[in-house]
Amino acid sequence: MLWPTHGTASEGDCVNGNDAYGKKGFKRSRSHFADRITADGRDGWPVEAGRYRLVVSLACPWASRALVVRRLLGLEDALSLAVTDPIQDDRSWRFTLDPDGRDPVLGIRYLSEAYDAREQGYPGGVSVPAIVDVPSGRLVTNDFQQITLDLETEWTALHRPGAPDLYPEPLRDEIDEVMEGIYRDVNNGVYRAGFATGQSEYEAAYADVFGRLDTVSRRLAGQRYLVGDTITEADVRLFTTLVRFDAVYHGHFKCNRNKLTEDPVLWAYARDLFQTPGFGDTVDFDHIKRHYYQVHAGINPTRIVPLGPDLSGWSAPHGRERLGGRPFGDGTPPAPR
Amino acid sequence: MLWPTHGTASEGDCVNGNDAYGKKGFKRSRSHFADRITADGRDGWPVEAGRYRLVVSLACPWASRALVVRRLLGLEDALSLAVTDPIQDDRSWRFTLDPDGRDPVLGIRYLSEAYDAREQGYPGGVSVPAIVDVPSGRLVTNDFQQITLDLETEWTALHRPGAPDLYPEPLRDEIDEVMEGIYRDVNNGVYRAGFATGQSEYEAAYADVFGRLDTVSRRLAGQRYLVGDTITEADVRLFTTLVRFDAVYHGHFKCNRNKLTEDPVLWAYARDLFQTPGFGDTVDFDHIKRHYYQVHAGINPTRIVPLGPDLSGWSAPHGRERLGGRPFGDGTPPAPR
Repeated sequence: MLWPTHGTASEGDCVNGNDAYGKKGFKRSRSHFADRITADGRDGWPVEAGRYRLVVSLACPWASRALVVRRLLGLEDALSLAVTDPIQDDRSWRFTLDPDGRDPVLGIRYLSEAYDAREQGYPGGVSVPAIVDVPSGRLVTNDFQQITLDLETEWTALHRPGAPDLYPEPLRDEIDEVMEGIYRDVNNGVYRAGFATGQSEYEAAYADVFGRLDTVSRRLAGQRYLVGDTITEADVRLFTTLVRFDAVYHGHFKCNRNKLTEDPVLWAYARDLFQTPGFGDTVDFDHIKRHYYQVHAGINPTRIVPLGPDLSGWSAPHGRERLGGRPFGDGTPPAPR
Repeated sequence: MLWPTHGTASEGDCVNGNDAYGKKGFKRSRSHFADRITADGRDGWPVEAGRYRLVVSLACPWASRALVVRRLLGLEDALSLAVTDPIQDDRSWRFTLDPDGRDPVLGIRYLSEAYDAREQGYPGGVSVPAIVDVPSGRLVTNDFQQITLDLETEWTALHRPGAPDLYPEPLRDEIDEVMEGIYRDVNNGVYRAGFATGQSEYEAAYADVFGRLDTVSRRLAGQRYLVGDTITEADVRLFTTLVRFDAVYHGHFKCNRNKLTEDPVLWAYARDLFQTPGFGDTVDFDHIKRHYYQVHAGINPTRIVPLGPDLSGWSAPHGRERLGGRPFGDGTPPAPR
């Protein structure tokens, strides 16, 4: 993959505490534990049902990709899930939502314990999504760009019957290209706007965000999904940013040329996905809003969480069926949650 | 008038520097210089063409009321205008937009000099709108709730031919009642939301803002203006808040249940007024946005000014003519600027 690796705001949402916020050029000493869990186990981590635990924050768009893909592929039983408190403390992501504040499977209070088990004295940030090896308690990977691709292409033996192909071989070049622009300008662009420390830095990011959204909107005016006629990884990645747009990026990150709801094409596209099993049922607006507004004290010193926006529109009819498309290709939707 | 006098955030926008921002219960030692300029001159300040100077910030909704009313009544020649820099410094409102940084008529660099000329060592805040007696250089009044009413009812001898009656005698009780609710919940409500220091204080203000806007929206669904069938002071006061809503209150003050543009009735009503001579031609979105986002460092520490929202919609047809109404009653619109 040709993903740019940003050590700055790109994963700013999901690294520990406030360290990354508002500091231009913040660098972690090491961006990722990039081991891969593969069918052949070449990195020492073979795909195996029940062995690994996915740790996410429901607030985090990068982690939410994994959550959506896990649902679409029916990997819930094979790959268990731990959900952190949306508010990090100075030791970062924590399991305060669980009884006694411990993840019941890993037995740890902080995700950082799994990082420490992997590398003692690891000096970098603690990020989600993370996959932890349950038997050893060690972090395997926090490589948010690779995790979903591996779930799609390496974990196939454990997919549910009827699981869609989210990264179809013949379309990978096109998917990669679309995702690269969306990553740079949208997924990460909103963070560059929100964490900008100067006006010109902000304005450049804002231009990228809306320039790309306009391009994507034109593309989606005539086709139901980003690439081909089925849901792919590219849609998953765009969705997790769009679903946060009006709730946090519009106001908190100053991406306010217009709301998502004001772009008829993107708003219908986002609603279409939201109403598709595996998408909206992974979204927790409460976690999303509390995380952004309460953790980023550098841009919201009062830590007050806005009551808006009105979210009722997400369930309104989207009318995108008229564009055709086969959401799950030759497969089937996941069972309702 | 039965206006509540708040020494806190009510005039927070227009008092000096950052003193009023984010401090719960901030009180000025003296809220207003409440002398009135009247036809009979009973406070020592008779209405007189060319004698007084109106000092405003184009950013300030309270000051902008006076700007609109002065235009509607054709008082431009009788009452001259000074416009401050939208960004106060630690000495408050200043004339840095004028040559040599001095108001060319009053000859002062800071509005506070007119306050000092009125009362040496005045310990309170410096606010706009302010009316200054040009010969003596002394502040006459900064009573934002009274200034427009006196322009309408005391300055009549200097009104242009065809000036509308913005505060018609038979409708004053109804106008006062409508304005009181709008003041408490909307004009001042957005400030209470934006300057709240805690979640519950914010949530109460947010409920007031949108509760009142919903009431007003229902009222305006069937009638073109708030009271009677002509433009009145009540419309002026609602307008100066509505025109700032999406640009600053929605994001900066977290009044984000919906944008103004998402309420079809209020959005059409606001556009109707905006397109009426005397309203939109007094609005400066650049001053508005720079003031709020750059002065309120307590809620926007980066001082970055958002590029949005897209303002092009303000000139779109509003369709409110179908409701009838006579914008200027038996009078006429002011000449275009």
